[in-house]
Amino acid sequence: MSDSPAIEGLRQALRRLPGVGPKTAQRMAFHLLERDRNGAQLIIEALRNALERVGRCQRCNNLSEQEICPLCSSPRRDTSILCVVESPADLMSLEQSAVYNGLYFVLMGHLSPLDGIGPDELGIPKLEALLDSGGIKEVILATNLTVEGEATAHYIGELARAHQFLVTRIAHGVPLGGELEYTDRGTLARALSGRREA
Amino acid sequence: MSDSPAIEGLRQALRRLPGVGPKTAQRMAFHLLERDRNGAQLIIEALRNALERVGRCQRCNNLSEQEICPLCSSPRRDTSILCVVESPADLMSLEQSAVYNGLYFVLMGHLSPLDGIGPDELGIPKLEALLDSGGIKEVILATNLTVEGEATAHYIGELARAHQFLVTRIAHGVPLGGELEYTDRGTLARALSGRREA
Repeated sequence: MSDSPAIEGLRQALRRLPGVGPKTAQRMAFHLLERDRNGAQLIIEALRNALERVGRCQRCNNLSEQEICPLCSSPRRDTSILCVVESPADLMSLEQSAVYNGLYFVLMGHLSPLDGIGPDELGIPKLEALLDSGGIKEVILATNLTVEGEATAHYIGELARAHQFLVTRIAHGVPLGGELEYTDRGTLARALSGRREA
Repeated sequence: MSDSPAIEGLRQALRRLPGVGPKTAQRMAFHLLERDRNGAQLIIEALRNALERVGRCQRCNNLSEQEICPLCSSPRRDTSILCVVESPADLMSLEQSAVYNGLYFVLMGHLSPLDGIGPDELGIPKLEALLDSGGIKEVILATNLTVEGEATAHYIGELARAHQFLVTRIAHGVPLGGELEYTDRGTLARALSGRREA
C-alpha cells in the first residue's frame, strides 16, 4: 500500500495486536509517525522491559516478575482454596471483586483439541503437582461459561475429584441489575436449575 | 492494577496508540506476554526501524524514507496540479481511487487554534514556497468536510487565490450507492447547491 517498506512493516507488525485489522494498524502507524514519536519510543521500551522481566510464576502459572508471584507468596492468603481461571485478566477481575482470599491457578487458555491445545499446553501436570503438594482442600472452577471453558472445567473437575478434593463451580445466572425480560434463555435456564433456598 | 510494574508500564505505553483505552491496552499486553512474544519482538523492531527511516518528504511533507518521496520524484505525475490533503491516510485513499495523477501536499492536520495548531504547524510556509517554485496551475483543496477541514480549505484557498492559482474544492454530495431517504440533511443541501448540468 505505502511506498515505504518501513511503514508497511510497522503496519504488518501492529496487526499482531489482538483486535487490530489493516485499517486500524495503518491509523496507528501513521499516528505514531506523524504525531507521537515519543509514544512510539515509549512502547518500544515498555515492550522490551516487559519481555525481559515478565515470566511465569512457578506455582500458579500467572504472569509474574518473580519466580513465585506476590499473590502466591503472600502470608495473608488462604492456602486451602485454589481457584482455577483461564487467564491473568480473569484473575485480575476476580481480585477486583475482593471477595476471594485463596490462591489461583492460571491455565493460560482452555482445552481446544482442534487448535492443538491439550492438558499439557494448559500446564495441567503443573496443576496436578500443586494439588499433590498438600494443603489444598477445595478447588473452585472459574473457567468461562463457553463450550471450551465448560469442557475445561469438566476435565479439571474429574481430575480433582479423583484426588479427593472438594470441587466447586462458580455460580451462573442472572447478572446483577439484569432484567429477566432481557436475559437470554440459556442464562435463565442456568439461573433456574441453579436456584437455592432463599 | 497488576502486581508487575513491567506489565503496568506496558499497559500505559500501549494507551498511546489511537483508540486504545485501558481495557484494550490490558488485553493487548496480556496477549503479547501470554501468547505472542515473537509478535512483541516484531513490533519492537518495526517501530525502531520506522522511527529511524521514516521522515518527511521535503517537497510534499508526506511521510517518506527519501528526502524527496517516490511520488514527488516520479516523472509520470502531472506537476501542474497540487492536491492539498490533511493526512498521509487521505493521500493513500485518493491514490487508491486511481483517478488523480497530480502532486500532493500533506498538511499533517488541520487548523485548530484552540489546540495551538496554526498555519506554521501545518507547514503552510513550505506550501507557499512550493507554490512559488513555479509550474503549478491548479490547487485542489481536499481537506475533510468537517468544521476544521472547511476552515483549513478556506484559509489555503484565499492564500492560493492571492497567488493567482486556479483553486478548486473536491465535490461533496450523495455518496455512491447512497439513497436520498437515508442521506443526512447537510449532505443533501451540499448535493443540491453543488448540482451540475446533466
